[in-house]
Amino acid sequence: MTLYGFWRSSATWRVRIALAHKGLRFDYVPVNLGTGEHHRPEFHAKNPMGSVPVLELDVGGRPRRLAESLAILELLEELHPEPPLLPKDSFLRARARQIALVAASGIQPLQNTSVRLYVEQTMHADAAAWIRHWNVRGLDALEKLVGETAGRFAVGDAPSFADACLVPQLYFASQRAGVDLAPYPTLRAIDAACARLPAFAAAHAKNQPDTPADVRSV
Amino acid sequence: MTLYGFWRSSATWRVRIALAHKGLRFDYVPVNLGTGEHHRPEFHAKNPMGSVPVLELDVGGRPRRLAESLAILELLEELHPEPPLLPKDSFLRARARQIALVAASGIQPLQNTSVRLYVEQTMHADAAAWIRHWNVRGLDALEKLVGETAGRFAVGDAPSFADACLVPQLYFASQRAGVDLAPYPTLRAIDAACARLPAFAAAHAKNQPDTPADVRSV
Repeated sequence: MTLYGFWRSSATWRVRIALAHKGLRFDYVPVNLGTGEHHRPEFHAKNPMGSVPVLELDVGGRPRRLAESLAILELLEELHPEPPLLPKDSFLRARARQIALVAASGIQPLQNTSVRLYVEQTMHADAAAWIRHWNVRGLDALEKLVGETAGRFAVGDAPSFADACLVPQLYFASQRAGVDLAPYPTLRAIDAACARLPAFAAAHAKNQPDTPADVRSV
Repeated sequence: MTLYGFWRSSATWRVRIALAHKGLRFDYVPVNLGTGEHHRPEFHAKNPMGSVPVLELDVGGRPRRLAESLAILELLEELHPEPPLLPKDSFLRARARQIALVAASGIQPLQNTSVRLYVEQTMHADAAAWIRHWNVRGLDALEKLVGETAGRFAVGDAPSFADACLVPQLYFASQRAGVDLAPYPTLRAIDAACARLPAFAAAHAKNQPDTPADVRSV
């Protein structure tokens, strides 16, 4: 398996969590969003949206290529169901997906590199205020929503897609968007519980081959 | 089952397609995004994100509530697998989800009512240009991506999550964002094939109880 991604890409990070949680080995090919490597024709040939992550893997004996982090998480769950990243109960599975989508559709698309650059360079507007606005709106909702299902993790006592999306979102909000996480005690407790899991530590933005030295964990 | 939605909400429309395709009966409660009904406290109690759709349904004998259209589609697929809205093949299932997510995470979050109003009223920027930009970027990618899997529909010869997301996106692009669909022959052919299915016709924005008279089909 080969994962094309970027150390601080939230969407790549979600997939790293799933791969690590399931104990799947993969090669990692950095695609530097900071220098626009994702806009090159050779990367668009892998994903016409020009976004990371892209996962190349064998499915049923054939080499395949897939993008969109939640589609990748679903495929990994189908191909490698143990250990799971979705609850057994149908409704709780749905809630894990709902929480994941609030981050992946409701917040992240409004903060990503392409959108930030368009806000700054084409609209000449305050991208930092824009990004904070959508992060605060989303985290306010997530704190309430997760409060309905949380145990040690976002949905009960095992990590799920929800946690795989929450952890990168909370890092972005606090470390890059300057959002104060004090109003979100439930989300912070989940983040702390995830940080104690080796899979989440291995997947963390601070611990990747392309993480810059000034951000990297010691 | 009760669906809270809005006639022209793309996300509500996706769920209407799934419900109609599976022959599931439901009550429809309009939530007028035009007058801000989704911002009322009683609606936020149903969905802290304040977005439609919200589906109330019985799961395993208990009344439950769920938001985020793709989470709803997945739950309906699990509870009512026939007729399916995902292919049997694992990789093609993943591709149907990838295509759905390009629309649902890659385009729609950048065009929705809350975002448009923020662009207009807070950033005092050109919301029409903003919306066209992200629609064109997304449809350019979708035309290529869908070209890899399309039969009569987006993934092979049966409708899937991908079509449930493409149809509302194409309507929005052409009817509301002023995007010329001529460069997208594959997407237009799929849209035409979907329009011939009774479930897609029943779910169409033009055919809802809350559709304004000047938009409604005869």
